This record gives sequence, structure tokens and C-alpha cells, in this order.
Amino acid sequence: MAAQTVASTTESTVDLGPATALSCRECGHRVPLGPVFACEECFGPLEIAYDFSAYDTEELRKTIEAGPANIWRYAPLLPVPADVATKPNINPGWTKLVKADNLARELGVTGGLYVKDDSGNPTHSFKDRVVAQAVEAARAFGYTTLSCSSTGNLAGAVGAAAARAGFRSCVFIPHDLEQGKIVMAAIYGGELVGIEGNYDDVNRFCSELIGDPAGEGWGFVNVNLRPYYAEGSKTLAYEICEQLGWRIPDQLVIPIASGSQLTKIDKGLQELIKLGLVEDRPYKIFGAQAEGCSPVSVAYKEGHDVVRPQKPNTIAKSLAIGNPADGPYVLDIARRTGGAVEDVNDEQVVDAIKLLARTEGIFAETAGGVTVGVTKKLIENGLIDPAKTVVVLNTGDGLKTLDAVAGTGLTATIRPNLESFREAGLA
Amino acid sequence: MAAQTVASTTESTVDLGPATALSCRECGHRVPLGPVFACEECFGPLEIAYDFSAYDTEELRKTIEAGPANIWRYAPLLPVPADVATKPNINPGWTKLVKADNLARELGVTGGLYVKDDSGNPTHSFKDRVVAQAVEAARAFGYTTLSCSSTGNLAGAVGAAAARAGFRSCVFIPHDLEQGKIVMAAIYGGELVGIEGNYDDVNRFCSELIGDPAGEGWGFVNVNLRPYYAEGSKTLAYEICEQLGWRIPDQLVIPIASGSQLTKIDKGLQELIKLGLVEDRPYKIFGAQAEGCSPVSVAYKEGHDVVRPQKPNTIAKSLAIGNPADGPYVLDIARRTGGAVEDVNDEQVVDAIKLLARTEGIFAETAGGVTVGVTKKLIENGLIDPAKTVVVLNTGDGLKTLDAVAGTGLTATIRPNLESFREAGLA
Repeated sequence: MAAQTVASTTESTVDLGPATALSCRECGHRVPLGPVFACEECFGPLEIAYDFSAYDTEELRKTIEAGPANIWRYAPLLPVPADVATKPNINPGWTKLVKADNLARELGVTGGLYVKDDSGNPTHSFKDRVVAQAVEAARAFGYTTLSCSSTGNLAGAVGAAAARAGFRSCVFIPHDLEQGKIVMAAIYGGELVGIEGNYDDVNRFCSELIGDPAGEGWGFVNVNLRPYYAEGSKTLAYEICEQLGWRIPDQLVIPIASGSQLTKIDKGLQELIKLGLVEDRPYKIFGAQAEGCSPVSVAYKEGHDVVRPQKPNTIAKSLAIGNPADGPYVLDIARRTGGAVEDVNDEQVVDAIKLLARTEGIFAETAGGVTVGVTKKLIENGLIDPAKTVVVLNTGDGLKTLDAVAGTGLTATIRPNLESFREAGLA
Repeated sequence: MAAQTVASTTESTVDLGPATALSCRECGHRVPLGPVFACEECFGPLEIAYDFSAYDTEELRKTIEAGPANIWRYAPLLPVPADVATKPNINPGWTKLVKADNLARELGVTGGLYVKDDSGNPTHSFKDRVVAQAVEAARAFGYTTLSCSSTGNLAGAVGAAAARAGFRSCVFIPHDLEQGKIVMAAIYGGELVGIEGNYDDVNRFCSELIGDPAGEGWGFVNVNLRPYYAEGSKTLAYEICEQLGWRIPDQLVIPIASGSQLTKIDKGLQELIKLGLVEDRPYKIFGAQAEGCSPVSVAYKEGHDVVRPQKPNTIAKSLAIGNPADGPYVLDIARRTGGAVEDVNDEQVVDAIKLLARTEGIFAETAGGVTVGVTKKLIENGLIDPAKTVVVLNTGDGLKTLDAVAGTGLTATIRPNLESFREAGLA
């Protein structure tokens, strides 16, 4: 099936479980399920529409609880066929929800503080969740090559998922990335193509390729498969609630890159309420950005509905999207739920990485430093209520952003004897 | 309680669940549970003796299956109190057992090939399993500081576990380790002490410290807490069997460093048989070493019962123990079960890392390259039966040994246009 950028009205016969159509987030126009991402009427973003009407709440709960220890336990709520767990897939998810009592004490949280630690995914970032969805959509649409543009986490996630699922992969990155990141993406054996240019050039090239016959049979996970890909973030909402005993937490702190993750977590929570799987109670969603790339935070504070693009300059590179597509939706959700959007500077990001590691033994990538740092700030300025439950997302692994904390080192150097040990004051 | 190297006969009143005593592996002499590791009679290694007599098989199975998604589901079989899951601990385990169908095709395995992927643990190596046990022993014995000598994985595992569990940590490493490894160990905020000397000097210093009043209150996870620590490896056996539907696989391929992991996996399998949780059927255990540190493999091939120490020289640094303490026990197990011990050279290790990544999307550290490489070799030389089940262990994460595959890189570099893309033959 050829890649398309705009929905056609051709009927689709793919089996993607409860997914029934694509629906425009802006105008509500519906089109059949297909590899398209923009509305033919208004060019708004398409998202998945479902039919959940046949589900009995308690039967659904039992099905989920008896399901595998990965995202496919929620197959009845995702755009995947019912037998998805039998297909070769990297099977991410069901990561730990850590009760962070030590961190809670440091931050003065008494209502229960939890870290949803997505560094436990197969390639150690939340990207495995969204890519796993894209793989199943690619399979349904008959694609044989998985592709994306990336500067890091996504390249590895696509490479690994394609290897397991039996797809060819061809990933595009700026040619001058750090050698470590290149190794992490290249190890899975797919095509890893360096583009002579920056990330914007890579993106522009990918858009060209999608419209060209050369891109025929190619599923770009975050472009023509984006509506399916994005749904993977809903599983974070499902897991958090199930792990809390089918309860929505009072407050969630979520990082913002494109903003897609935050909006899909909100969508997931709304679905759980409608399905009766959780009690319908108020929750507040807080968005977290780095000061060096804070277009949504700035818009929030200035009271705007639209987001003015920024040129990113922060160590939190996995969040460094200067023109976040879902920014307006994030603003809407933060305001509607009584949450907020806040940012912290790079020094605060590093401090927060160290704080989380020192209190909970979790080594987060810079994006996790952003959410923990923003949580601390929001407690200090009174926007997060420390007497109520707080769930903070860590979406990646510190091993991938070692440079950010390179200053961390030995606390002492001694000669190999007890005298030197005592002199250093370690006894 | 003061650190001791040899067991006293003082009665112990600690609650470590089903653990009843320490028993000498050589002479069977029993002493009360305590922070000791060598037999006072013959200086043989002490290991945990249990009383499992009260367990009903089917009730035990139900208890385990209803337990948490970590090693504490097996609390009734470990030296930990019954309420261990309520204590602050890094909670490793219940990692994925990946059905590796793509790798099976490449290696010609038709009986079912599985990779037990311990890179999914909190600090991404199997060390989290053993350290988690040591933490609970340290708690029971009233220690307040956790310590170890390390060149990498263990330092991070101890740092993270101590942070979560509320212990001070003081880890000793050679002062000139690579900066990346220092960061990974230092990030958790404990004392990280560089010793001016090599790893042998670090070890010698730690032995001195254990015998000194300065070491009072210190639990060295792999020295005075070693009997408890080592039991963590049993959980690999339990998980593999439970994940296979309570069945022992026909063949297991396990890396050898000290040999402790392999012997404890065998112990775990024997326990499951005695408890009636699995059918008593033959299984073969294969040990895997790197050629550059292959003392057990050499002894196996030469038909010796003892192991002649080697000076390690291999990229598989996490397995580079030239004088493995449990070498003789490994030889015994390999021979008794009809398995073998084999080694592969560094080039084969790298090839195997790439093979596993390319087929299954799993990026293993060098130790995983050793087990996969040895599996391939054992199939080729007819010692592993490809028509029967094979389980291969991956005990660590490729992100920690990037240098080993540093040659992996871009498959093409192009200009950002379709013409250049076509010229590169990528269309």
C-alpha cells in the first residue's frame, strides 16, 4: 500500500481490533483505518476512534489482569488485533511503578509519591511502547520496511522492534551524531543512514521520501503510522491506574516533547473512566519542560492558547522539540484539569537526576531529571498538593545521557591500606 | 554485629524465612545464620540450608503465581523474611524470557530457543538479583553500610540498592576506571572510593577492612554476605521454569565468572524438583567462557577436576575472573548433567552480540555475546541438541560495553535528497 499523507475514503478491511476508523481531532471528520495522519478536510491530526460498546466492565478487568506482563494486556483498548500477543514484537511495558518513599520525604510529599520508571523497557525508553504499536499497524497495512528520523532513543527502538518483528529497517539520523548513539542504533543490523545536515534536514528528507515511489512499502513510525504509534502512550495511563489498584492518581507530572504523550495519557484516563474501570474523580495533569526548550511552558504562563516555536538549547535533548505539534492540546488539558506547565533549567535537571538516583536508586535520563525537577518546583510554588498522590514519569535511561552528569565522580582516592582509608575520613 | 570471616557457633535469632542455618558445601558442618562465609572446620564455602518441609506443592505454586512481578514471588524459597515485599528494595527479577524464533532459525534450533534477558533488571544486569538478597541479609544482621569491590556492574547495583533501601554505601574500585563506569557507579550518591592500584589491590584492601574495626557494621555483599548474596541466582532457575509453564528446559547455557551463578541455578532446579513444582526430568547445563579467560573450559576439556588459574585477557570483562572459586563445582555439574563447558574468542563474542541484536532486537553486553556464541559453537559441534529446548542467559546490557562493538556504524552517508538516496542503492 502506498504511503499517503492525506486520508482517502477507500474502505479499509484491516483487523486492528476495537479500532474502527480515524477521526480528525479538529473537525471530527472520519475516514477508514489506513496509513494516513492528516485530515483531508482540514489537515488536522487524525486519531484512532474505537468501539468499546460491547465490553462488560468486570469481564474486561479480568481479561486485562490475566493478560501478559506487557502492553498487550490492554489489547482490547488498542488498535491491534486480538491475537497480538502471539506475534513477534518487542513487547514493552508493564514497567515498575516505584513507591518513592525516600524521594517523598525529601520533597515533603505525604499523599504518596510514585515514579513510573519506563527505563525498564526493552531499549530503555518509553519509545518502545509507541514503536510496538507502529509495528502492528505496519504489519496490518502490509509494509515491509520500518523507518523514522531520529537523534537517539527512537532509532534504537525502531531498530530493535524491526529486528524482532521481522521487518527491514532504515533509520535516518544526522551523520555527525556521537559515536555511542550511532552504535546503539546500528547494533540491530538495519540500515542506518547518516544525512549530511542537521535534524531539520533529516526530517525534510523523510517527508520527501514519503511522497516518492522510493518510499512505497515504508512505514515511517512517527509520520504515516503516527495515529497508531501515538496510541502506545495510552498504556502508561492504563498501567499507572492498574498498578495503583485501578485508581487514577490525583496528580501526574509528564514530560513534553511534541506533547503527544501527555495528550494520550489524558485520553487513556478518560477511556478508563468511561469503561468504568476506575472511579470518575478529578485529576490534575502537569506538563514538564526544560527551560532551554519551553514553548508550552511559556505559552501556559502567558495565558496563550497557541505555542510560539523556540530554538532548543538544553541538555534534555529527547524533549528538545521547539515547535511541539500537540502544544495547544497540552495547554487545554493542563487548564481543564487544574494542572499547570512548568520548566526547570539544565542545572536543576542535573540536580534532579542526582536526587532521584540518591533517594530511589533510579538513574534517569535528562527527561526524567526534567519531570522530577518540575515536580519539586511545583511543590515549592504550591501548585502540586503534597498531601495528595503524585505520579512522576521517568521516560528514559541515564546510561544514554551520561554526558549530562559527567561531573559526577569519585568521592575519594586512597592508597590500598587502612591508614590511607582512615586519613580520608571514611572509617 | 562485627564482620567475621569464619563461622562462630553463637545461636542466631534472625528471621530469614525458610533459611535455617549455614551449611558447609565441603564437609556439611552447620552453623547458625550469620555474616560468615567460610567453614570453621575446613574453610569450605558456606551456603544456606532451608526447611521447606511444611510446604504443600499446589499451595506454594498458587502463592508464587499470586506474588509480585519480581524475585519476591519466590520469597518462600529464599533467605528473606515472609514480609520482604513490603521493605524498600530495588525489587529486581521477573525479566523477560524471550522466545527467540529468529535466532532459532539462524542456529537451526527446532526444539524452542529462549533468551532469559536480565538486561531488564533495574540497573540492567543480573547483579541486581544477588545484591537484593544481600540487602535483606544486611538488614537482618543490623548492618548500616553496604560495600563491595567492583569494576563495573556490581558497583552500580550496590549503589542503587543501598539508595533505595536506606543504607550508606561505600564501594571500592580501581581509581583509573573509564569515566563512564565511574559515573554509572557514582550517580547514586554513595561513597565511591578509588584505590590507587589494580583490581587485585582493591580486593586485598577489602579483605583487610573486613578484619578491622573500621569495617564494623559493614556488609560486603560478595564477601561476608556472600552465602545470602549468591542465593539470588536461584531466582533465574525459578523464573525460567515458571515462565515455561513450570517445566525445566532440556538445555541451559550459563556464563561462568566465579561459577556461582551456574551452581545456584542448578541448586534452584533441584529445589523445584524436590518441591514437586516441576517434573523430575533430565536437563543439561552448559557453561560459557571467553577464550581469554577460560580456566573452567580448559579444565573441562582436559578432564581435570580442579581449575588452573589464568590471567584474564578478554573484552568480556564481567566474566574475567581468572581463578573462579566455584570452578570445581561447575565442572561437576556440567559432567553430572551431561552438559559441557565451552569458550569463544573475542571476535566470536562480538559476532554473537550482533547476531542476537539483529535477530531478536536484544543488545547484550559482552557476557551475553559469550553465551550466544558458545550456544552456536555447541550446536555446531553437536553437544547441544537443536531438536530440544535451549535457554540462553543474557546477564547484562550492551549499553555498558559499547566499546566492544565500537566498530558498528552507519551503513551509508548521503546528502539530504532523493537522488543521493537512490545513488546509495537504498531505494
